[in-house]
Amino acid sequence: MANNKPAIGITIGDPSGIGSEVIVKALATGEVHEICRPVLIGSSHAIEQAVKLVKAPFSVHQVDSPAGEAGTDPNRIDIIDPGTRKPDEFKLGQASAANGKAMAEWNKMAQELVASGQVVGTVMAPVNTDSFKMAGVSMGGGAGGEQGYLFLINGPLRIVHLTDHQPVREALKLATKENLLKLFDLLQSSIAKWGIPNARVGLSGLNPHAMGDEDDNELKPAVAEANKRGLNVTGPIPPDTVFRQCVEGIYDLVVCIFHDQGHVAAKTWRFEGTAALSLGRPFVGTSVAHGTAFDIVGKGIADHKAILSAMKLSAALGSGQGFPRN
Amino acid sequence: MANNKPAIGITIGDPSGIGSEVIVKALATGEVHEICRPVLIGSSHAIEQAVKLVKAPFSVHQVDSPAGEAGTDPNRIDIIDPGTRKPDEFKLGQASAANGKAMAEWNKMAQELVASGQVVGTVMAPVNTDSFKMAGVSMGGGAGGEQGYLFLINGPLRIVHLTDHQPVREALKLATKENLLKLFDLLQSSIAKWGIPNARVGLSGLNPHAMGDEDDNELKPAVAEANKRGLNVTGPIPPDTVFRQCVEGIYDLVVCIFHDQGHVAAKTWRFEGTAALSLGRPFVGTSVAHGTAFDIVGKGIADHKAILSAMKLSAALGSGQGFPRN
Repeated sequence: MANNKPAIGITIGDPSGIGSEVIVKALATGEVHEICRPVLIGSSHAIEQAVKLVKAPFSVHQVDSPAGEAGTDPNRIDIIDPGTRKPDEFKLGQASAANGKAMAEWNKMAQELVASGQVVGTVMAPVNTDSFKMAGVSMGGGAGGEQGYLFLINGPLRIVHLTDHQPVREALKLATKENLLKLFDLLQSSIAKWGIPNARVGLSGLNPHAMGDEDDNELKPAVAEANKRGLNVTGPIPPDTVFRQCVEGIYDLVVCIFHDQGHVAAKTWRFEGTAALSLGRPFVGTSVAHGTAFDIVGKGIADHKAILSAMKLSAALGSGQGFPRN
Repeated sequence: MANNKPAIGITIGDPSGIGSEVIVKALATGEVHEICRPVLIGSSHAIEQAVKLVKAPFSVHQVDSPAGEAGTDPNRIDIIDPGTRKPDEFKLGQASAANGKAMAEWNKMAQELVASGQVVGTVMAPVNTDSFKMAGVSMGGGAGGEQGYLFLINGPLRIVHLTDHQPVREALKLATKENLLKLFDLLQSSIAKWGIPNARVGLSGLNPHAMGDEDDNELKPAVAEANKRGLNVTGPIPPDTVFRQCVEGIYDLVVCIFHDQGHVAAKTWRFEGTAALSLGRPFVGTSVAHGTAFDIVGKGIADHKAILSAMKLSAALGSGQGFPRN
């Protein structure tokens, strides 16, 4: 029967990747149904195959929407399957244009569900860049663009990135007071919406020991102005200190300048369990920091901790409960 | 009575800092005397004070050199004290010109001991930059200069830095094929000398995912050439992957481009226990990645794991036994 838990929409990612496997494993922990109603979007065949692979005690059931009883039964996987992918059309471990097209459709459906309030947040299992390219689908964005800012979350370590895949040379030019304030403003409105008032933010320095021209001329003035605007930001803090301080609970989150300040910290500290979120998009949408792992697909050895974190994160933030404590 | 363990020379660092305290705590574990003969260089008064502070069961004994029985008795701390610092001349928690001058003399003595083969390696407890400045003592170097390349070691995570305190903007210019090969050549001769033939080296990329102009035009050709010269180097590897792979034993060490690739990895992964080594100096000399911690000096709460690691590392590498497994 229906319950009043929030629904989340989970796209299965590339049907030829490990997405279906890790989703099924994550649901099999029982931890997801405890806090929300998970509703999948994608190929029911791919999910049935994964259920068999991991020998999970699930029936797979097609639904039309996340309404009513969808996602309430912990022994059942409910999935919205627009039929984009026929069972014989995909091969495990192989990118294809058809996969790319299907993923684009599933992602669009998930966006519509969250935009119309039918789910509180989305979760995206790993997509494959090659499949998207073959389908001619644009991956969009980058830092601060329409894709928002990359936000990695691994337990207490929460890291928003000012820049993403730009080369270091380009990222240096983007580290301006103006760009930082744009991010800080977004952060302030987002974290309030997510139920986290007065978050303690640590800004990572740009140069070693946070001592350099950019730290003095761009980062420091941005921090001063952000504090005037009511955000609780400290910094710039030496990059080799601030992430550890966040792990130890001194900050609620870190804003860093470069992709590999935050990514090195999160993935070296604890490789498994890193969920990704986009800051600056209008709705809560999480994903994982790993890929489709074509090399191990179908072997049953893919680790589900990252997508489990991503599901919990989507449910918690989407329903305004703040960051999960794990 | 004398034993045939290798002697190491340990300078006590700034006598007003936590150096003496962490040295005494490290020696009190008993683990250092098991593998080598530790001989201190510095103010015997500072060490006596630290022995009282941490209530360690040591007598403090002045010696002239690391010869004979020096460092053999685990119940005694043997120290070479040139008398540079009189007991009433230093105050805990305060930098001074006299401290700076004394540290310079102690470091010089340690260098002479290792150069003449009286000790196999040195260990430097934290020095204070202000004391050095007040004394007009130059701290020297930077990456690849006379101070060599900074090498951070924390258990299985071993990281050589191509650049050190240079701003990112400057470090970008130093990431050339030529500079990398200079480092690789040094590494090859050093690791053989340290008893580690065929070390598996992972080179961290410069840009996100190791995809960018510098990765293609400088790092890749350097790796190809280094392999021709007989070093086992793989890379460039995505920065957010290579350090984790080193933790997991896939590489014996990582060479990274920027200060805060390596420092963020080491200090976020496991803050305590990071020892520092200089690659490219003629003798083994280790230190720690933390400072004099004037804010907690004299309280008995300073952690000794880093200097304990540094002592074990100096003894192991100095006597050609390779990296300690801890």
